[in-house]
Amino acid sequence: MTKTPPCVMTFSATDPSSGAGLQADMLTLASIGCHPLSVVTGVTVQDTVGVEGVMALDADWINDQARTILEDVQVSAFKLGLLGSVENIAVIAEIMADYPDVPLLIDPILTSGRGDDLTNEEMQAAMCELLFPQATLITPNSIDARRLAFYDEGDEVKYTSLEESAQRLLAMGTEYVLITGTHERSADVMNSLYGAEGLIKEYHWERLAGSYHGSGCTLTSAIAACMAHGLTVEEALQEAQEYTWQTLKNAFRPGMGQFIPDRFFWAREETETLETDFEKPSSIQH
Amino acid sequence: MTKTPPCVMTFSATDPSSGAGLQADMLTLASIGCHPLSVVTGVTVQDTVGVEGVMALDADWINDQARTILEDVQVSAFKLGLLGSVENIAVIAEIMADYPDVPLLIDPILTSGRGDDLTNEEMQAAMCELLFPQATLITPNSIDARRLAFYDEGDEVKYTSLEESAQRLLAMGTEYVLITGTHERSADVMNSLYGAEGLIKEYHWERLAGSYHGSGCTLTSAIAACMAHGLTVEEALQEAQEYTWQTLKNAFRPGMGQFIPDRFFWAREETETLETDFEKPSSIQH
Repeated sequence: MTKTPPCVMTFSATDPSSGAGLQADMLTLASIGCHPLSVVTGVTVQDTVGVEGVMALDADWINDQARTILEDVQVSAFKLGLLGSVENIAVIAEIMADYPDVPLLIDPILTSGRGDDLTNEEMQAAMCELLFPQATLITPNSIDARRLAFYDEGDEVKYTSLEESAQRLLAMGTEYVLITGTHERSADVMNSLYGAEGLIKEYHWERLAGSYHGSGCTLTSAIAACMAHGLTVEEALQEAQEYTWQTLKNAFRPGMGQFIPDRFFWAREETETLETDFEKPSSIQH
Repeated sequence: MTKTPPCVMTFSATDPSSGAGLQADMLTLASIGCHPLSVVTGVTVQDTVGVEGVMALDADWINDQARTILEDVQVSAFKLGLLGSVENIAVIAEIMADYPDVPLLIDPILTSGRGDDLTNEEMQAAMCELLFPQATLITPNSIDARRLAFYDEGDEVKYTSLEESAQRLLAMGTEYVLITGTHERSADVMNSLYGAEGLIKEYHWERLAGSYHGSGCTLTSAIAACMAHGLTVEEALQEAQEYTWQTLKNAFRPGMGQFIPDRFFWAREETETLETDFEKPSSIQH
């Protein structure tokens, strides 16, 4: 018997391409030595090009999936992705309230990589009002950070500074905000971490060519995995960004659309040839 | 950019514990160097003790998930697990018929590890009549092999020999049958491979103490992964059984019920300490 790895529970919708969503979360968590527990919030139809359909599951099913396993298994971190409906957000907020000591990482997904809308205004408001007050860290990209920061004030004020967006998001109750900078027009990618004292740190990363499917899911799950291993937010952010950058650098392109981050880049050499993979148990007789 | 790993598509229901189901498939495939594509057939509520609820998705959603990604990505093997309904089985059979050259591995799940019923007689008949004729290999346990072999003759004849059960299953059209022997009362576990010529090989494995959640999903997914890497059925069976035995030997127990196979047993030492995990990209400036 092996020691149980840290268990991380994610709430997300499935993505059959395994680029993003529940599948991306699971692969990332497993790659960083955690056991993934995964609550399905919805089902999507998509390929590497874009999202063709989204079905949200009923909130009762979300609640039952999560509560049943939470009464059986100890969870070291929660990670939220695409949640599917206002009702789902409300039920997840109630569950989170029962586990206040477990780190809560939120990737507030508003659109797909291609730009397909995955949330409406009511869902954005529910996230801001019910979930962000309980969050350890939220990880919006710069576009979504601006939208969420002014979710209750309409469209006209959203071209504000990242600093002001972060302050507004912090005022909603989240402990930290990481605003990712892939969508900004800078030469490198700058991610900015904000906390109670304002800007904590800026991270600069070489900008990679190509478009990636599930980089946000990978980053936030990687942070959750590192925190489940006991790292602080800042330590986890450092490790998780390094990990995510490597998954993108080593991404592959299985279809006609976006690249998929290779969450097992560090094992690829070993798993390419099967011959050397698995020790033969000495007890086999054949 | 990395070379795209072999892509394997699984059809299965989700298991929030990640012991079995879609999650088990994905972790196994990733562990053996494949990229998992996963079509959700249903959602279950379960913990490590047992299954509390099963919801089958509509067949249209199965079809859309699979067809969308199949038109985008080349698949090297299919693996079927819990399919949820007769309608789902019918639609999957149609999809399989369009990809006759791709190996099709079927784990015909009738009950959960604890014995909860997950199929009815109509679903069993549909599997036998629509899917087995297209299968490369099916992997029933000895109890289910007997039930499926006589699915059209009622209960009274099911205590027959494994040999006769295998012959009847082969007569339905599957190329190979592996009957797993965990449920038999032998000192070791004997798995038996049958093909057109009858018994091909018996595999003997040390019987492990404890009850495991998802060992069947792990085994069949491992076979699919090995075949996607280009191994023959017999080579894949050897590797996959060795792999699965190791996942059981290294299983952990996160809750109060069954053990969960550790699909990443071979990486556990590396992933336990995060410090040495990920090379720092040379381009980071911080």
